[in-house]
Parts: sequence; structure tokens; C-alpha cells
Amino acid sequence: MPDGLETLTRRLREFAAVRDWEQFHSPKNLSMALIAEAAELVEHFQWLTQAQSMQLDAGKQREVALELADILIYTVRCADRLDIDLLQATRDKIAINEQRYPVERVRGDARRATEYEPD
Amino acid sequence: MPDGLETLTRRLREFAAVRDWEQFHSPKNLSMALIAEAAELVEHFQWLTQAQSMQLDAGKQREVALELADILIYTVRCADRLDIDLLQATRDKIAINEQRYPVERVRGDARRATEYEPD
Amino acid sequence: MPDGLETLTRRLREFAAVRDWEQFHSPKNLSMALIAEAAELVEHFQWLTQAQSMQLDAGKQREVALELADILIYTVRCADRLDIDLLQATRDKIAINEQRYPVERVRGDARRATEYEPD
Amino acid sequence: MPDGLETLTRRLREFAAVRDWEQFHSPKNLSMALIAEAAELVEHFQWLTQAQSMQLDAGKQREVALELADILIYTVRCADRLDIDLLQATRDKIAINEQRYPVERVRGDARRATEYEPD
Repeated sequence: MPDGLETLTRRLREFAAVRDWEQFHSPKNLSMALIAEAAELVEHFQWLTQAQSMQLDAGKQREVALELADILIYTVRCADRLDIDLLQATRDKIAINEQRYPVERVRGDARRATEYEPD
Repeated sequence: MPDGLETLTRRLREFAAVRDWEQFHSPKNLSMALIAEAAELVEHFQWLTQAQSMQLDAGKQREVALELADILIYTVRCADRLDIDLLQATRDKIAINEQRYPVERVRGDARRATEYEPD
Repeated sequence: MPDGLETLTRRLREFAAVRDWEQFHSPKNLSMALIAEAAELVEHFQWLTQAQSMQLDAGKQREVALELADILIYTVRCADRLDIDLLQATRDKIAINEQRYPVERVRGDARRATEYEPD
Repeated sequence: MPDGLETLTRRLREFAAVRDWEQFHSPKNLSMALIAEAAELVEHFQWLTQAQSMQLDAGKQREVALELADILIYTVRCADRLDIDLLQATRDKIAINEQRYPVERVRGDARRATEYEPD
């Protein structure tokens, strides 16, 4: 059975091709579309407390799900246009993060990596 | 064999749990982290032409791959915190887009949906 | 005495001109630079509570001030490149907002305009 | 005559106060609203070429002017909530940029500061 992300990649490539939209899908443009979708997600949460953002009603939950879908769509498209293996890059990044944020050092502390003073 | 996104979801959930970071991972906060990563992608392309953005050198290509990974990480985390099936939501969104942008109508024209005049 | 924003507009125009950077300062590119700076602001606040974001220490306060400056710089530059009178547009927008959010209707309620049901 | 930004700051403070919206206007929330507005600017340009983004028709020009206004509104509000002198911070930042990007070094080259190799 093909992996979900691979199937998605091919389906989105086809979606763009039949609409002759590849011409618009430069990585530069796709990064703009991606951040515009990320902002629609942010907009849902901007006036909510953190607690409220955990407890969405069904309508809002559905809207948020579709915003996350839009973000994934442009992430997958951008990776595809640059011949990037998104799943592999993500595995690599998690391995980097495991090095950068050792459990015993960062437990319960979410400061950014650059804010950790060298020992 | 488990799907790539499902495996990723579980691995990231574990990553946060052992660091006691779930307390920071409200959907509100995750949407902020997500858009900050999307902006790092944008930053790579901001002064490039569209053509240049298609032809990255190996070093830049690697950096971009890791930015896309960061975006996917926060997208998956946010969906997980809200019990959203990201792959299903994405399939749903593509079906909506297929209705909204019929091939014969939008071929070669990337205006936003709201900019299409009703017939 | 010249207005602060006008002086700023001219100074930034000069800054770009002597560096031969006008060629990079298309509104498209400037919008990307602007959102990248907005994201650096977001990054400062992403793991803070709302209360913590009101009480920054002196170092963080200074960093945030410089991020806001970067945002203003690109906002002013983008307006200048499009011959937009930024201060007048802002006065117009406030007038629109006063119509859209009548005091008696929205007091203490920050939902987005589109979420208000018609009476 | 009072400076444009100072007048704006007071007017927006009043706008929020009479609506009892200060409670929502934490710097954290304002940074989210700000980036959501920046993304609406980006959206106008995402499928345009750089050349097209310089030549907007009157309707689009007006919409872009109002997006820039929204960005300025939230920038001013965020600075006000943190007691930051936005105009002074911007003058400081320009002075920093003049040091960081000496004319003779960066003429015609817009790479990011971090990409310049030390001599």
C-alpha cells in the first residue's frame, strides 16, 4: 500500500498539471501561499486563550482541520517542486532536534535553542 | 506497515511528552511556531526570482528541506493536539478544491477563488 | 517640522537607492520580507503566556522593539514603492473599523467581523 | 502639530479602550493579529510576478493600501502596549543597518546579513 504522503504528492502534482498551474508553482510562490494558509490558522486562535484553543466547537474544529490541510497541501507541493523527500527530511530534522534538545536539559522548559547558554 | 504520517504523529507526541512540553503545545502556541517556521522558508526565497527559487544549490536545498520538515512537524503536532485526522482532512480539502476550481474554468489562471466572478 | 513617517519614507528610499537595492524591492518581495519580520516578533511570544508577553525583561523588550522597527521599515518601504499614503490609508481604515465595529455592539467581544451574525 | 504616529497611537488606544478590547490586546495576541494582516498582503502578491506587483490596478491598489494600514495599526498597538517608542526604535534600527550593510560592500547584492562571509 502506498504511503499517504506519496499518494498526496502525486495527486497534487496531477491537480496542478491538469489546470496548467505548474507555471505559478515556483517554490517562491508556494512559500507565499503556504504562509498565507498558516496565517489563516493563526487567525482562528488570535483572540482565544490557550485553554480555549484546546476546546473548539465542532464548526471551528472543522475549519481548523481544513486550514491544516491547506498547509499540508502547500508543504507537499513545495517539497515536490524541489525534489525533496519530505518524510525523510522530517525524520532527519527530528534526529537533529533530539541532539539539540536533550531530555535531561530541556525538560519543562521551551526556550528557543539559541537562548540556551552553553554550559 | 504503518503510514508515514501516523508514525510521525506518534513520534512527535512522544518527543514532546518526555520533555514535558505538552504544556506549551496548545493549538494557539503551535500555530505561532508553525507560522514562524513558514516564515523561515519565505526568508530563503524573498530576494530570489521565481526562476532562482527553482534552482537552489545543494546547501540551500538542504536548508529548505529542513524548513519544510519543521513546518510538517508543527502541522502534525497541531492536528494531533486537536484530534484531527490530517490525511483525511487533506483528502476532503482536495475534493473541495476540485469542485471550486473546475479544470475547464481555471486552466492557466491562478486567481484566488473569491476573485472569480459568478457566471 | 516634517512628519515622522515622511522622514522615514525618504530615509529608507535613500538607504535602498545608494545600495542599488531598488531592484529587489518589488512589492512582492517586500511583502515577503515584511512577513518574515512579523514572524520574528511572533517567535518571541510563541511559548509565553499572554501575561508573560506583557512583562518582558529589558533585553527582550529591546529585541522586540527592533523587530517592530523592522516591520515598520518594510511597511513604509512597500507603501512607498506603490505610491501609497500610508498615514492616510490608516486613517481611512480606522474610519472603516469604527463603522464595522460599533461600540455598543462589540464591547468586550473580539470575534472577527465576519463572525458577527447579521441582526 | 503632533506627529502622525503619536496621534495614531492615541487614537488606537482610545479605539480599543471604548470597546473594552485591551483585555485581548496582549503583545502575544497582537503579534498574531499583525502576522495575519501581513499574510493578507502576501496573498495579494502570491501568484503575481514581481513586475505585476509593481503595477496594480486601482481596485487592488486600494485593497493593498488598506492591508498596509492594518499592519501599521497592529504594529503601533503592539509598541504602545509595551511602552516602546516605535519611531525611535526604527531610527535605531536604521543606524544598525547602516553599520551592518556598508554601501561599498553590499551594492547591488541583497543577500541576508548572515550570508555575508567575514572578510
